Amino acid sequence: MNRRMVFYLLGKILFIESVLLILPTICSAIYREQKSFWSFLATIAISLTLGFVLTVLNKPKDNTIYAKEGFVIVALTWVVLSLVGALPFTISGEIPSYVDAVFETVSGFTTTGASILTNVETLSKGMLFWRSFTHWVGGMGILVLVLAIVPTDSGRSMHIARAEMPGPIVGKLVPKLKSTAKILYLIYICFTLLEVILLLFGGMSLFESLVHSLGTAGTGGFGIKADSLASYSPYSQWVIAIFMLIFGVNFNLYYLVLVRKFKSVFKSEELWIYLGIVLVSVTIIFVNIYNIFGNFSDTIRHAAFQVSSVMTTTGYSTVNFNEWPNLSKGILFLLMFIGGCAGSTAGGLKVSRAVLLVKRVFANLKRALHPRSAEIIRLEGKKVESETSNGVLIYFSLYFVCLTTVFFLLLFEPFDLETNLTATVSCFNNIGPAFGSAWDGYSIYSPFSKIVLSFAMLLGRLEIYPIILLFAPSSWLKRRKIK
Amino acid sequence: MNRRMVFYLLGKILFIESVLLILPTICSAIYREQKSFWSFLATIAISLTLGFVLTVLNKPKDNTIYAKEGFVIVALTWVVLSLVGALPFTISGEIPSYVDAVFETVSGFTTTGASILTNVETLSKGMLFWRSFTHWVGGMGILVLVLAIVPTDSGRSMHIARAEMPGPIVGKLVPKLKSTAKILYLIYICFTLLEVILLLFGGMSLFESLVHSLGTAGTGGFGIKADSLASYSPYSQWVIAIFMLIFGVNFNLYYLVLVRKFKSVFKSEELWIYLGIVLVSVTIIFVNIYNIFGNFSDTIRHAAFQVSSVMTTTGYSTVNFNEWPNLSKGILFLLMFIGGCAGSTAGGLKVSRAVLLVKRVFANLKRALHPRSAEIIRLEGKKVESETSNGVLIYFSLYFVCLTTVFFLLLFEPFDLETNLTATVSCFNNIGPAFGSAWDGYSIYSPFSKIVLSFAMLLGRLEIYPIILLFAPSSWLKRRKIK
Repeated sequence: MNRRMVFYLLGKILFIESVLLILPTICSAIYREQKSFWSFLATIAISLTLGFVLTVLNKPKDNTIYAKEGFVIVALTWVVLSLVGALPFTISGEIPSYVDAVFETVSGFTTTGASILTNVETLSKGMLFWRSFTHWVGGMGILVLVLAIVPTDSGRSMHIARAEMPGPIVGKLVPKLKSTAKILYLIYICFTLLEVILLLFGGMSLFESLVHSLGTAGTGGFGIKADSLASYSPYSQWVIAIFMLIFGVNFNLYYLVLVRKFKSVFKSEELWIYLGIVLVSVTIIFVNIYNIFGNFSDTIRHAAFQVSSVMTTTGYSTVNFNEWPNLSKGILFLLMFIGGCAGSTAGGLKVSRAVLLVKRVFANLKRALHPRSAEIIRLEGKKVESETSNGVLIYFSLYFVCLTTVFFLLLFEPFDLETNLTATVSCFNNIGPAFGSAWDGYSIYSPFSKIVLSFAMLLGRLEIYPIILLFAPSSWLKRRKIK
Repeated sequence: MNRRMVFYLLGKILFIESVLLILPTICSAIYREQKSFWSFLATIAISLTLGFVLTVLNKPKDNTIYAKEGFVIVALTWVVLSLVGALPFTISGEIPSYVDAVFETVSGFTTTGASILTNVETLSKGMLFWRSFTHWVGGMGILVLVLAIVPTDSGRSMHIARAEMPGPIVGKLVPKLKSTAKILYLIYICFTLLEVILLLFGGMSLFESLVHSLGTAGTGGFGIKADSLASYSPYSQWVIAIFMLIFGVNFNLYYLVLVRKFKSVFKSEELWIYLGIVLVSVTIIFVNIYNIFGNFSDTIRHAAFQVSSVMTTTGYSTVNFNEWPNLSKGILFLLMFIGGCAGSTAGGLKVSRAVLLVKRVFANLKRALHPRSAEIIRLEGKKVESETSNGVLIYFSLYFVCLTTVFFLLLFEPFDLETNLTATVSCFNNIGPAFGSAWDGYSIYSPFSKIVLSFAMLLGRLEIYPIILLFAPSSWLKRRKIK
């Protein structure tokens, strides 16, 4: 383990966080929120100092990193980012408990959107902006951002990218990883701006449009009202519903549109299955809840919004769907697991991974009948190597082992199965809302459970490996001289 | 597909079922229950006629069978066995709906113990005996019984045994499969008789001792009282708690005791993990429910009984544990998935499969850190082939795909998440009781859902493959001449 290099890169990350913190500071300044303003400035000072110590006083002699370092850097980056990012909430006294503030910040960066606030409307504008901005940064990935803007050599960064990017197969759009990261961020920024403009047209203020667009883009879900998006106009709700779906699609497809490879886009298996699942779910829920709203336009809007929100793991809501009939709640519960497409900002298992899993299982059933036949699986028309599909099987098992562990640790809370189970699944898959007693937020949980759920969110966002390997003693051993 | 041979063997199975039905007929005769008596006789007549048609009029020219036929025979055997076994209930009018009767019989043969009866105490003695007897037959496996008593050639029967025997690795105790089956049944009979004797000592009548021993041996769970075993003495409850645990252990270990290989028994990893899980669960639940009972002996008995019952997938109860605190219910919910040891009469994933899964997942995590290290897994001191551990991964995925499908089909019922989810898990893992609205039985479900749950029980008991392959069109294709 090249510890020096790990800490050096962490220092760089802290510099970047200081820069990111300038935006909410400006926001506080505009709204003349003194307390918030000084809290952000204090955090920037702390972040810069730590960054200085880690980079200038800790210059590494050897800057090679391997897979192991990649995992550790990614995990530590997200932990440190959240620990520092939580400071403004506590310094300003808006979230007095530091554990609560960390939960909120982890929930932000991991684009979960789960909140411990009992009344979000009391937060200052600066803090509200910072919450939503963490969604935006976490959605595409902080290290992808680093790759896009900081000069690095490519071999080294692949180990980092592989550990942070979601989905079963990490692809590069263009031969250079750095250019790939730049293109991804450009698409991301354009869609976010487009949403801001469309929301402005619907009568939202600039602040509201910005905050909700950042929350949508990262598929996060932090809002600024206690009833999420219920009080906004149908137009705004439709815009957000559609943009959630857009941000749940593999960004590679948008790049393909840019380079006019429309045929590849239309042939995307994952895209069609993703849209198919959305369509089927909306239809079932529409029929199931029709008698609640009694008219077509409200029913279809609420059905589509909630499905889009849960499927893309965003977590906004336009109604209290905790009180919907069990069929609709059950469908949404199942959608929680699947999540969006690989290579999107959404969480969950990812559509392509679920598809690969089902294909592998069926190929195996076929093989039970015809033992001599070869077990070939195709995805997007390409043959999937057995190592990749084995990887998916192992990921799926690991996923349930982790889910079970988190659920077990929550059992010591006095809540029922529905509450604890949906809280576990919701945090792990970076969605946000949970059913039952947790519907009104995670403030009901003890500090211990809040820490557990914070880890669950990180496990889900980073797809398990980095976080677990962070705790493996052998990750921290010095590299042996002879390899 | 050698269809003739499949139907021929089904005919043989029907002959055996006719023989099995003699026992409840005698029971009805003893208790002078005319209606039951004639219903059993009528069923025997139907079963014999069908058997005659399938064997004598359908003599196969070619008696070779392959893996494919093995799966189909096993699946059809269990379906036909249940369809015919349900007749006495409906003919006698004690369970008027045939769908209900089939559910009850499938639940019996698969050793689930889930019931649609609203008041079990109104059933005649003959029917009560038949219900429990199906547990006993299904526990060790009807085809294992066939192997033990009917002359067959060994190569052929291995395909059948592999499809019916639970667990990730099918082992033979002795070189000949037939002798293995005989030894297993002998051990089974001895333990059952021992339990009968011990229960007689505790003041149960012969009928009660028999019925409960048959239910325990098969890890089934059908009782004769509405409150299961709550009204029996602490002594009887302890006897049953311990025998449930005994029948949840791999029977190979008892054979090893018989041949005095005590060392291998003590070194059994699966046994120690099984007992360890029981111990930890009992301890947690003991602490959690102590204030309900207020004294050591009642608390420990109820905790141990319920853990033993759920872990071994039996499903008896001594208290209404649906009303226990959420921690205890949560622990029992997790135990539902694991189940007993491979090679026992218990259902569920099986301890050794769960252990293999966790080991494989950890080996993979280790490999992520040290990509060049080999991924070797050991179970019971022996190296596990990667094909076996891949098989476990696929089984686990398939298991969740099936669970999700069953849960989805139940969603159209008006019950909450806890009810539908625990009903799915309970039936699939052959346990019996479910939480929430289903606590008082499965009569709340529609006929459609009862059929779905019946399939879930069969999927669980036969470990998925045979039942799914039964519906694969290519299972039924004629064998091509050139192979």
